[in-house]
Amino acid sequence: MKNKDRLIFVTNDDGYQAKGFEAALEVAREFGRVLAVAPATAQSGKSQAITMYDPLFLDKQRSEERLDVYSFSGTPVDCVKVTFDHLIGEQKVDLVISGINHGSNAATNVLYSGTMGAAIEGSFYGVPSVGLSLTSHDADADFEAAKEYARRIIASLLEHESEEQNRGICLNVNVPDIATEEIRGMRLCRQCRGIWQDDFFRHEDPRGRTYFWLSGGFSNYEPDAEDTDEWALKNGYVSIVPVQIDLTDYNRMAYLQDVLKQ
Amino acid sequence: MKNKDRLIFVTNDDGYQAKGFEAALEVAREFGRVLAVAPATAQSGKSQAITMYDPLFLDKQRSEERLDVYSFSGTPVDCVKVTFDHLIGEQKVDLVISGINHGSNAATNVLYSGTMGAAIEGSFYGVPSVGLSLTSHDADADFEAAKEYARRIIASLLEHESEEQNRGICLNVNVPDIATEEIRGMRLCRQCRGIWQDDFFRHEDPRGRTYFWLSGGFSNYEPDAEDTDEWALKNGYVSIVPVQIDLTDYNRMAYLQDVLKQ
Repeated sequence: MKNKDRLIFVTNDDGYQAKGFEAALEVAREFGRVLAVAPATAQSGKSQAITMYDPLFLDKQRSEERLDVYSFSGTPVDCVKVTFDHLIGEQKVDLVISGINHGSNAATNVLYSGTMGAAIEGSFYGVPSVGLSLTSHDADADFEAAKEYARRIIASLLEHESEEQNRGICLNVNVPDIATEEIRGMRLCRQCRGIWQDDFFRHEDPRGRTYFWLSGGFSNYEPDAEDTDEWALKNGYVSIVPVQIDLTDYNRMAYLQDVLKQ
Repeated sequence: MKNKDRLIFVTNDDGYQAKGFEAALEVAREFGRVLAVAPATAQSGKSQAITMYDPLFLDKQRSEERLDVYSFSGTPVDCVKVTFDHLIGEQKVDLVISGINHGSNAATNVLYSGTMGAAIEGSFYGVPSVGLSLTSHDADADFEAAKEYARRIIASLLEHESEEQNRGICLNVNVPDIATEEIRGMRLCRQCRGIWQDDFFRHEDPRGRTYFWLSGGFSNYEPDAEDTDEWALKNGYVSIVPVQIDLTDYNRMAYLQDVLKQ
């Protein structure tokens, strides 16, 4: 398909005003006409959440040549849903880009990530979906390397867009926060095992009520395994993990058959 | 382990005042001392979301013999985190129960479900975790069958609690909304493929602004496959799907290696 015929959908979880979102729009525009619907406010950590109890508002933020940007008052997944189920009508989306996130979504983060929640949701609709993240939380982070690798990965995916295996493919791409020329390349990885070791910041509000505020850091269960996304990032590579949504634990089926037999 | 020595953690996503939560507490108390921390408000559809931008408040709601119930102002996953990382101190939790949810969490619902988000989070801590759901959204639903099957499943799991494969096991259990005697038994299943076909309810608010409100229903991609949770529920069985959290799509690794090679 030619770039002029393609429709690219862009969303994120940091909200439509984030620098990383502009970076994603810039890359997306190189590949087609762009429709962007991003959360009105920061939605990090929202996972695959949907908004069930509140009405949601859609506002057009800007319109340029082959680019329309909306904000939506819900979660990243809500943004995907309102786009596919309402905004596009009979049009077909050819690629979903979610990001570029300010902060890593490697390893177990994929489960909490609103960026990846949206990418996964895009893949439900059968569209190739790429979640992009940079390992820096800085609001003014440098997205040059992330943009460059996003371009390469998207170009490769789109070269194969007519293939059956491309349908609904979903990638979790993380880019280390180093200069483009320091990056050693891309690595296809598996999701690293580990856990967020949480540490609640605990304090008293102005009225003397104790509150908790989530903090913490990632604890890697397998720091020496060289095929994980965490290893790739630590060693200067862009990590690419293909993601799927069947959570069935097939490996424990036989065990459970035995456990539940009595 | 004896029931008197066990610590059972209970949470849900419908909030600490839901009828299904009481049903879960009742079952949990048969197996050990119970510590329950549930959302202060309804948190359906919250998936694995964590609260990053707001302080959270923990309130003791009641205390009885071998039972403590708290509400927490965050998501189901926040409830798990504050319990394991703060409340229990040096104690060890022996089982996590999340539910009993008002509404099905079978098939693709597992990805949006706050009930299952909490169960999955429990399994991160290495604790056997059971998410329980009844296929009725009625606030006053009849939980008798769900309690009965929850008892059987938990008893079986705990009989094997010292086994290595039991560690961090996570089950997505759904119970059809029919009388206990009509249930044909339990079936170990895989997650059914399908998608939520969304339909946005669209209206104007009192000030003339258009709002969207998510609705829709599940569309089953494989209604004839007899090994899925959807099939089990439709045919009068309790469905049990073991759940794991490595989202890596190993099946597409070779394909992607080829795509990204250029």
